[in-house]
Amino acid sequence: MKDDIIPDSQVPTSGGRRGILIKNILLPDMSIRDIAISGKYITQIGENLSVSADKIIDGTGKAVIPGLVNGHTHAAMTLFRGFGDDLPLMTWLKEKIWPYEAKLTEEDIYWGSKLACLEMIKSGTTSFYDMYYWLGVTAGVVDEMGLRACLSTTCFDHFESELGEKCKADTIRFLSENTGYSDRIQFGLAPHAIYTVSGNLLKWANQFSAENNLPLHIHVGETEVEVNDCLRDHGCTPVRYLNRLGVLSPRMVIAHGIYIDDEEIKMLADHDVKVVHNPASNMKLASGAEFKFMEMQAAGITVGLGTDGCASSNNLDMVESMKLGALLGKALRKDPQATPAEDMFRAATLNGATIMNSKAGKIAPGYLADLCLVDLHRAAFTPNFNFISNLVYAANGSCIDTVICDGKIIMENKYVNGEEEILERAAGCAYDLIKR
Amino acid sequence: MKDDIIPDSQVPTSGGRRGILIKNILLPDMSIRDIAISGKYITQIGENLSVSADKIIDGTGKAVIPGLVNGHTHAAMTLFRGFGDDLPLMTWLKEKIWPYEAKLTEEDIYWGSKLACLEMIKSGTTSFYDMYYWLGVTAGVVDEMGLRACLSTTCFDHFESELGEKCKADTIRFLSENTGYSDRIQFGLAPHAIYTVSGNLLKWANQFSAENNLPLHIHVGETEVEVNDCLRDHGCTPVRYLNRLGVLSPRMVIAHGIYIDDEEIKMLADHDVKVVHNPASNMKLASGAEFKFMEMQAAGITVGLGTDGCASSNNLDMVESMKLGALLGKALRKDPQATPAEDMFRAATLNGATIMNSKAGKIAPGYLADLCLVDLHRAAFTPNFNFISNLVYAANGSCIDTVICDGKIIMENKYVNGEEEILERAAGCAYDLIKR
Repeated sequence: MKDDIIPDSQVPTSGGRRGILIKNILLPDMSIRDIAISGKYITQIGENLSVSADKIIDGTGKAVIPGLVNGHTHAAMTLFRGFGDDLPLMTWLKEKIWPYEAKLTEEDIYWGSKLACLEMIKSGTTSFYDMYYWLGVTAGVVDEMGLRACLSTTCFDHFESELGEKCKADTIRFLSENTGYSDRIQFGLAPHAIYTVSGNLLKWANQFSAENNLPLHIHVGETEVEVNDCLRDHGCTPVRYLNRLGVLSPRMVIAHGIYIDDEEIKMLADHDVKVVHNPASNMKLASGAEFKFMEMQAAGITVGLGTDGCASSNNLDMVESMKLGALLGKALRKDPQATPAEDMFRAATLNGATIMNSKAGKIAPGYLADLCLVDLHRAAFTPNFNFISNLVYAANGSCIDTVICDGKIIMENKYVNGEEEILERAAGCAYDLIKR
Repeated sequence: MKDDIIPDSQVPTSGGRRGILIKNILLPDMSIRDIAISGKYITQIGENLSVSADKIIDGTGKAVIPGLVNGHTHAAMTLFRGFGDDLPLMTWLKEKIWPYEAKLTEEDIYWGSKLACLEMIKSGTTSFYDMYYWLGVTAGVVDEMGLRACLSTTCFDHFESELGEKCKADTIRFLSENTGYSDRIQFGLAPHAIYTVSGNLLKWANQFSAENNLPLHIHVGETEVEVNDCLRDHGCTPVRYLNRLGVLSPRMVIAHGIYIDDEEIKMLADHDVKVVHNPASNMKLASGAEFKFMEMQAAGITVGLGTDGCASSNNLDMVESMKLGALLGKALRKDPQATPAEDMFRAATLNGATIMNSKAGKIAPGYLADLCLVDLHRAAFTPNFNFISNLVYAANGSCIDTVICDGKIIMENKYVNGEEEILERAAGCAYDLIKR
């Protein structure tokens, strides 16, 4: 981190739009520094900084981390939290999720997305990669709540050409209609999975994303059934199938990616495809525990972390996700040195920001001021021999005290504006929904 | 839970020593009731209870659960939190733990135990099963903090008869000297493991525990190395070896128990041996993921849950332990129906209390008033379709608002008396320790 302390004269500025000065705060490398923020950006890091600021935060007893990045979720599905658990996958989908998803209204999406944003802010997430429907509504919510998001609109054709044409038209219309939001919001495409989207639609989505420089989010290699069906239908495994279709690219972000062999890892690395690991979801749905974090990282793949949606993995706590990723990786390999805390922290911060195409995820001048202050005055950080270890292994999302996104404070002293109303209205929508 | 609502006339009383009335609180079965506590016990559960009480708690927006039971930990080792992670087991022990454990003072044990008790109270644990040294100091701390504990003093002889005799004398002296504590505190024996304790000392410990009706805590089946060494040295697996020694009994509480086969499960069930699952520790130390929760439960074994010590698994959060147990069980079996939330909740409450030999772990008249109030006014409980699911899968220990142990409030509105001093003094001890 010391390399990033640059002289005042070389510091980028942002026109002095807003200014925050954080004094005497613990950095992840265990040094104590001041951090100056101007506009959207971190401008200086050093000792005894003397800069003008609208807001001065006393960092004593706190640490700062880059805002966490949730690389895969379905925000509005917070409404389904705890609605069906401990069930076989198809029973869960057919009896619990699909019938009620079909009944969701715009108001449900609004309050479900609000609840998700509230939960993410509370637990230190400043950016998320969403895959769902009605994302214009979610975009408005993200804008209001001050977060950063890549919202990828789900498409599928169930191998019917008519549905495919409708999907293309819907996607084009959605993207043309949804403009004018804050630059914290990007849109993307989300061909759902290889078992719901035809090869033709996948190729179209890839071409459209290339022409419009849009990210492309897809579930790949999540279950053994998917792999077996792919072998049956296409004579090869999912990543090989995508490679054969020619749709692997740096714009592609794969969620799950459990069932991927060494040769497929190389294919992904060669095309700079990103992968997001979702340990809570993979364990809870019993999809599989074999995510190859270390091999993918060694191959040069940018691996992020996600929670998946609350319907399957029940919360959006990325601090917990780091712990689960670390613990699952060690248990799987019977190697206590595997998936160390530092790697999980990088996955949830810098790697996540890379996946989101944003210059965030690092506490350094010139980087976006997406930052969280951590309350160290609790048992999980006592003693504090190793901050990253305590954050990943001992803490949970409740340690987050203050959240700054895009240079703006969106939570202070654990309080988010309007949180009571969000909890009440979201619960109301959920209870109404299941009566429909 | 409704079966437990008994008429006023049949309710046990405790001489009216103290009285707490909790109004309109959500029970785990999703009903809303009043709970009356008199002295140490829950005396009534019902609607609109009209009883006199020194303290009335408004339960609106809260739920009540039995106090959680941490079935295996090493409390004073909180001082080693984050001191060595992501290391091979022997490097960790030889370079990080053993040299500094040898330098621990009584003051370290005092503040380390205080920190552990604080952390447990904060995250809803009212009882714990400890295995460590200097437990007279820890007993004093437990007494002061108002918790319930079974403190089992560690013994080993490293297969040397002289050490064995010293261990016996030390144990007898320790138990005779440590009397006069609150009845919330029990003592027990903890022959450390089969690879540190000779068969003779194990047999002595078993006989001594039978004669004095003391519980006997032991690490068994934690690693593959232990199993292989046992096969080499004794020609059989660990539980078979213990069975052959004749030391399996209802007083025995096994920690870990990962490497136990079906026939051994039957041996444990036949002798009513208890087993405590430690998912965080087993995953983080990469000991093994194959704990047979469902098989043990089906065989009639009382299976509890624990965190292990903070040196290995970094926190004492039993809410997190329930989630890890559930997720690990599902992932291992590739079965989303395995290790459901309700089973984990029972393991952490009623089963834990059974293992502790205390009439707690259940919200019913006549049971000890070891209770926690859960703050429902947060995202993890929004919506609240299924409270147990939200508690196990969405929440963490930070949801605990108020803790009652033995009929006495020991945390109210998330505050424990003296918590600032405990954090400061424990951290001071830890930082001093590593300079010695």
